[in-house]
Amino acid sequence: VAKERFFEDLHVGETFTSGTYEVTAEEIIAFARRYDPQAFHVDPAAARSSVFGRLVASGSHTAAMTMRMFVDSEIGPTDGSLGAGVDSLRWMRPVVPGDVLQLQIEIVKLRLLRSKPDRGIVTLKIDTRNAAGEAVQTLKLNTIVPRRDGRGA
Amino acid sequence: VAKERFFEDLHVGETFTSGTYEVTAEEIIAFARRYDPQAFHVDPAAARSSVFGRLVASGSHTAAMTMRMFVDSEIGPTDGSLGAGVDSLRWMRPVVPGDVLQLQIEIVKLRLLRSKPDRGIVTLKIDTRNAAGEAVQTLKLNTIVPRRDGRGA
Repeated sequence: VAKERFFEDLHVGETFTSGTYEVTAEEIIAFARRYDPQAFHVDPAAARSSVFGRLVASGSHTAAMTMRMFVDSEIGPTDGSLGAGVDSLRWMRPVVPGDVLQLQIEIVKLRLLRSKPDRGIVTLKIDTRNAAGEAVQTLKLNTIVPRRDGRGA
Repeated sequence: VAKERFFEDLHVGETFTSGTYEVTAEEIIAFARRYDPQAFHVDPAAARSSVFGRLVASGSHTAAMTMRMFVDSEIGPTDGSLGAGVDSLRWMRPVVPGDVLQLQIEIVKLRLLRSKPDRGIVTLKIDTRNAAGEAVQTLKLNTIVPRRDGRGA
């Protein structure tokens, strides 16, 4: 049975921790070859003489790894929920091979739309941290969640 | 020789068009299996009974394909430039197998930071469109670009 969750079940200030994601050089390079082929993402030798001094993950890759941890988390998508967009996304620190990432997720806003009585918008602040607890990325993600009392409206 | 571009070369209102990116079911599924394994992104049969009625690309995947077209574009990264973050990202229409995507990119803001005299922040509005010209995603991306007259500062 799929997870079921409604807008009314959620509260501002609730927090969640995801599982972890181990970052490998192989995956950094494979992702970046296809989606972000800059030297410091695809070429370990060239990366050493770059501003980062070593191979680092593409920001798009960090965002994608974050999505996977979010999807697998307790507050991840359920039947009827949808991603609506991102309010802000910042990359604060490099993500490097061997990093073990984990998310700290907080519900920061709940909104109802008059035009859509059967659903609400949930804004989540999703911090992606490395094993040292340093935030490598912070993200505000808007998701659409069905309302329990809006069913059939 | 790597492309060279400085903050002083850029002007608000300048526009650029990227190359194209053809979306396949195989890539939609491969990306989503790893980064966003929701049924409507990984399972064509289950997708038919979903809200989308068909297999659709993960929003993270659309963002990653957008990054690839941006990197390959005339206004893409050059030596010394870096992605700083995203101000907003919205997914407006589903991206489906067979779509041919292309970017319309506009410089919408140029900022100098007193604390960083050797570089500036360039805000780009990046619209990802399908072959019908419909925007499937819109993104405001901040990039850091070196200043010509800041070298050695």
